[in-house]
Amino acid sequence: MASLVKTAMERATTALLTPDLTLAETVISDDSVIDSIQHDLDARTINLMARQQPVASDLRTLVTSLRMSADLERMGDLAHHIAKQARMRYPNIAVPAELVPIITDMGRVASQLIEKLSVVMEHRDIVRALEIESDDDEMDKLHRTLISTLLDDNWAHGIEAAIDMTLLGRYYERCADHAVSISRRVYFLVTGEYAKSAE
Amino acid sequence: MASLVKTAMERATTALLTPDLTLAETVISDDSVIDSIQHDLDARTINLMARQQPVASDLRTLVTSLRMSADLERMGDLAHHIAKQARMRYPNIAVPAELVPIITDMGRVASQLIEKLSVVMEHRDIVRALEIESDDDEMDKLHRTLISTLLDDNWAHGIEAAIDMTLLGRYYERCADHAVSISRRVYFLVTGEYAKSAE
Repeated sequence: MASLVKTAMERATTALLTPDLTLAETVISDDSVIDSIQHDLDARTINLMARQQPVASDLRTLVTSLRMSADLERMGDLAHHIAKQARMRYPNIAVPAELVPIITDMGRVASQLIEKLSVVMEHRDIVRALEIESDDDEMDKLHRTLISTLLDDNWAHGIEAAIDMTLLGRYYERCADHAVSISRRVYFLVTGEYAKSAE
Repeated sequence: MASLVKTAMERATTALLTPDLTLAETVISDDSVIDSIQHDLDARTINLMARQQPVASDLRTLVTSLRMSADLERMGDLAHHIAKQARMRYPNIAVPAELVPIITDMGRVASQLIEKLSVVMEHRDIVRALEIESDDDEMDKLHRTLISTLLDDNWAHGIEAAIDMTLLGRYYERCADHAVSISRRVYFLVTGEYAKSAE
């Protein structure tokens, strides 16, 4: 799931910045693949709960897996939203030239976060789980820069582009929030303690 | 939880439109109460899973309860975001005069949705669960009207207010989406079938 979400997020960013309609359509239609993996994964998890009657840490792991699949599914939705924005403005580029570097960076940070997340989930890597917190700080910083650019007196792209950029910024930021949420769950599962306090 | 979320959403809307700083602060600090109910509820759910070793529909109900608590917690976060917006612009009103009726309506629809949701959850009322779908359509309609007002040539409140309104619109809309998500879970639990297909 994480690998598909990463691909979706990278493709959505490329579709947005190129702009590439075919790629946007691919992200939009592939979202159902992520959704069906979630359904399958959740069905297996519930099946294990019913058949194996797990307790203690096994049960906690299964419950955590249900929550992580919900976060990943939502991250896929956010990539889908970004792709829909690319499609809506095609053949124009939804992102004004001076914001292309910021959106490129937000896309890069999102991709890094998800890459790291895969390692965190596969190897229960709590060092990388903590790194995801600082990657999220980087995303928040980019998000603040994006908003200040919109508020700058030199902003010359009007209201529609400002609305587009506000929503796009939020999609990337929320994607990072979900990655943080998953990495915190893994951290808790491994250590029995909460990482950094959630907002 | 639903009752606290309903109060939070109503207070956040009032705090935004009055504007009322004290009320905004109350919503912001009360969000932790909703969070701790979620933690307590989830701990009890997992405890029941471990002790009673439920199978079939009992297990599905418990898993659904974990998911519903996550939705409700997120709805509380959205009320919290609205209250923070009210606080950020205080003593000004974040909402320009011509959008007050729309935000009032969005607040009213959100409140109705959560009210209905309480009945759906308490009585497994699938008729009302389906009604929530149409209430959500009303929210989407309000949201579209909101965005067209921002895009209208007569919009005279600049970029900052447009960004504020874009985010506020999204918070109300997402709140309704979570209500729909919960009502669909209840519908599925009762009937074993999916209500209307999710987007």
